[in-house]
Amino acid sequence: MIRRIHVDVRSSCRLLGTVLKYLSLTLLFPTVVALFYRENPLPFLVALVVTVAVGTGLERLEPDPSLEHREAFLLVALTWLVVPMVGTVPYLVAGTGTIAHPVNALFESMSGFTTTGATVMGDISVETHSRSIMMWRQLTQWLGGMGILVLMVAILSELSVGGTQLIREEAPGIQVEKLTPRIRQTARALWLIYACFTLAAVVVYYGLQLVGLAENMTFYNAVAHALTTLPTGGFSPEGRSVEAFEPIVQWAVMLFMIIAGTNFALYWYAWRGHPERLTSNTEFRSYLLSMGVVGGLLSVLLFLGVGLAITPEYVAAVPGSLERSLRHGLFQAIAIVTTTGYASMDFNTWSESTQAILLFAMFLGGSAGSAAGSIKIIRWYVVQQSIRRELFTVVHPNAVRPVRMGGTGDVIDEQAIHSIFVFIALFLTLFVVSTVLLFLDAHRTAGLELSALEATSATIATLGNVGPGVGVVGPMNSYEPFSRAAKLYMVFLMWIGRLEILSVLVILTPAYWRS
Amino acid sequence: MIRRIHVDVRSSCRLLGTVLKYLSLTLLFPTVVALFYRENPLPFLVALVVTVAVGTGLERLEPDPSLEHREAFLLVALTWLVVPMVGTVPYLVAGTGTIAHPVNALFESMSGFTTTGATVMGDISVETHSRSIMMWRQLTQWLGGMGILVLMVAILSELSVGGTQLIREEAPGIQVEKLTPRIRQTARALWLIYACFTLAAVVVYYGLQLVGLAENMTFYNAVAHALTTLPTGGFSPEGRSVEAFEPIVQWAVMLFMIIAGTNFALYWYAWRGHPERLTSNTEFRSYLLSMGVVGGLLSVLLFLGVGLAITPEYVAAVPGSLERSLRHGLFQAIAIVTTTGYASMDFNTWSESTQAILLFAMFLGGSAGSAAGSIKIIRWYVVQQSIRRELFTVVHPNAVRPVRMGGTGDVIDEQAIHSIFVFIALFLTLFVVSTVLLFLDAHRTAGLELSALEATSATIATLGNVGPGVGVVGPMNSYEPFSRAAKLYMVFLMWIGRLEILSVLVILTPAYWRS
Ligand SMILES: [K+]
Ligand SMILES: [K+]
Repeated sequence: MIRRIHVDVRSSCRLLGTVLKYLSLTLLFPTVVALFYRENPLPFLVALVVTVAVGTGLERLEPDPSLEHREAFLLVALTWLVVPMVGTVPYLVAGTGTIAHPVNALFESMSGFTTTGATVMGDISVETHSRSIMMWRQLTQWLGGMGILVLMVAILSELSVGGTQLIREEAPGIQVEKLTPRIRQTARALWLIYACFTLAAVVVYYGLQLVGLAENMTFYNAVAHALTTLPTGGFSPEGRSVEAFEPIVQWAVMLFMIIAGTNFALYWYAWRGHPERLTSNTEFRSYLLSMGVVGGLLSVLLFLGVGLAITPEYVAAVPGSLERSLRHGLFQAIAIVTTTGYASMDFNTWSESTQAILLFAMFLGGSAGSAAGSIKIIRWYVVQQSIRRELFTVVHPNAVRPVRMGGTGDVIDEQAIHSIFVFIALFLTLFVVSTVLLFLDAHRTAGLELSALEATSATIATLGNVGPGVGVVGPMNSYEPFSRAAKLYMVFLMWIGRLEILSVLVILTPAYWRS
Repeated sequence: MIRRIHVDVRSSCRLLGTVLKYLSLTLLFPTVVALFYRENPLPFLVALVVTVAVGTGLERLEPDPSLEHREAFLLVALTWLVVPMVGTVPYLVAGTGTIAHPVNALFESMSGFTTTGATVMGDISVETHSRSIMMWRQLTQWLGGMGILVLMVAILSELSVGGTQLIREEAPGIQVEKLTPRIRQTARALWLIYACFTLAAVVVYYGLQLVGLAENMTFYNAVAHALTTLPTGGFSPEGRSVEAFEPIVQWAVMLFMIIAGTNFALYWYAWRGHPERLTSNTEFRSYLLSMGVVGGLLSVLLFLGVGLAITPEYVAAVPGSLERSLRHGLFQAIAIVTTTGYASMDFNTWSESTQAILLFAMFLGGSAGSAAGSIKIIRWYVVQQSIRRELFTVVHPNAVRPVRMGGTGDVIDEQAIHSIFVFIALFLTLFVVSTVLLFLDAHRTAGLELSALEATSATIATLGNVGPGVGVVGPMNSYEPFSRAAKLYMVFLMWIGRLEILSVLVILTPAYWRS
């Protein structure tokens, strides 16, 4: 039986074991938080034991694991399935609130490790849940972001999934034949940058409190938000997200969201003395432009008052105020395009047409090589350039014209272009089918009245790892009212969306398991 | 000046003149109808004079027109712009109802010649408007359908627009170097088939009345509906569309809609003794399958009652009735997938989730080589096969595997695949931008409250040449409440959607006008 399939399942499991052992170390952080605040550290100690036990068991499977193409796919899919499962242990042991239920715990944990930021918590506060549990929730996003950076830059680009090979040319680290050493080297460089930016966010957020500009931004809050900004996660221990903080904090968060949604490989080059590789990068420019255009449009609509359907309760009057329109418009554009999903105000108060703009912006996604989700700007850039090329070649049928990157003028491989189109087609197909499924399921769910816009937003918010949608699943609301089946389906969406769809779909095809 | 541009504008205009002269002949039909019913024939006589005058004027431009690539694009774009403009003359001269206003008249005429079937008529009845005016409205669709058949099979496939080159292999007529003779030959074959099916529809529709099964299906109604079934048009002189007729008529209309949405080139082969080319055709099978799947889903939802939001006023109780659920479910699936846009019941009474299914089905489109609009099944088939190929090659990076047609096993050219993806990207981009524009415009339009679902449906219904959307633009409603700017924009959408987008966009690029 083992001989007939040509995938070395044991190698993938062995490496998953190693991942779990590293994960167990990170559980020490919420344990320390619990001890510091005199809370019960048991949830984390139980999780630690489980993680070490499973991890050690899996590591025994294979003495010398080798990571070929297929094993890498399996490892990736398994990692983002098993780690979130293990991550539910603290929620289950703590047993407080809605996330004490296994399905909700899995949703919250998957939402964390996939950096989605969709929540099923009924009451988001450190009073209901402990400070340590809330910090664990924040930490899952930070860890998930670390994983995604390595996945995008080192693994998926190497496997040429959905055009991610375009990142490869930009990626740090020397070219080596085997995957494993390359992953290790790239990971180290990326994580250092990631950690430095997280530290910088803590310093800036907490610094604003120290100089008296941000009353609510305690050290706890500063760490908590830094942990979810850099992975474009969006979880917040505050029920009203970033609305709970002063305008100056919101501007600071915007800056760090922009940083988080940028290709981290470019920082590596900048750090090595090539800052021009960042500033001249095509995707980086398109990324800034898209946030500028969406943010500008939203700001104008908010300024004119067209953007609002009802008067928001918790923020000062937006229409007619230049600073507030710009701040909320830009903040939401950045939060959505980077797929962070924070909110500076409840955009459930916005008019449907303005929410529709947000919804469409959810399909953009940040840069490849960051922890941002959704389709990602580089893919849209390639689509746009392909359209321009097509408009030329349809008139000049005999002309041969390659598609090029704007900054460097590098020719983009036709195979990569094709993969990008296929990826987008897959993404949109999954989006359409899932919207219909979730929409129909809502009919048989008591207490859940879903509009078309809400159903659509729930799908793209989970599949694109954005987090909040509109209406029922708005930024100050929760996915709790959905049926268990729907929640499990959304767990699937977050998982498959996070892994660029293809890496999950391939292991479901018979061709993968055959020689 | 003339020397500096390399497009022979005069050739295109000369051939447009010829098209107009042929159009003038068709005005004799509503003139005869007017005389028969003792109505005023003036609207058609004025239009006849205008058409002959403009046509003759344009024909004088160039003694020997030659149709190269670029001139063909210009001819196509101009034809579907000028013919609908001339087509407004009867509405304007008649001066009855909402379509007496020039913007509304243009909307109605463009909707006719593009076989869209969206209406701005406030009161759809032969009492308000004369029988001859209503027949002219039906005729515009039949003429538009004729034009589209030739456009798709002979012109756009030759110009390789958006993957339409895939039709070419299937198209009747011998291969010749110059476009003009080929167009003439292909046109003759297609029009004969088209006319025969139209005649068959008249015979069947009226036959049902003669045998006493369809009281309302007068000879006038039989002709009127045959004229809008075959071009997948959807205009009806009845305000309540096909709901106004007996169930047996609705089943007959379904049959002719299926016929209308099939690649007409396949009929040509069947007629020439190769019926297996129809039955084994990949697109034809996918086309039937997609209507079956959508129709089956709708029928189940209607049967269970989940599909309905409110109890419909004019039809017998649907939930629990197998015949009625099947009939309305299948009818609407066929009407939407073929982009005809008839309605057997008011689907504004359906639940939002069921309407969302209709909305997504609007993106399918019928077969290439028919008068159906939207994206079209063959393109989705190629996308689906490309996804399958990608799932294989991502695991076997060195494998070379072409994409093939299901029936014949023919390899699909990679260039055509690329063009298809680019087309879909363009279509969806235009859809998204237009939805936002129409949605925002509705805010400043008094008396128009548009939901997200309604805004979305108005865009795809016009861009995809489907006709009715949901809610405000539902099948028994009208596009009249939109602002003039929005209506003109939708005129643009119907025009560009009908011409497969690219053929209009190219003439807007500078590269087209340069050498
Ligand atoms: K997120
Ligand atoms: K139509």
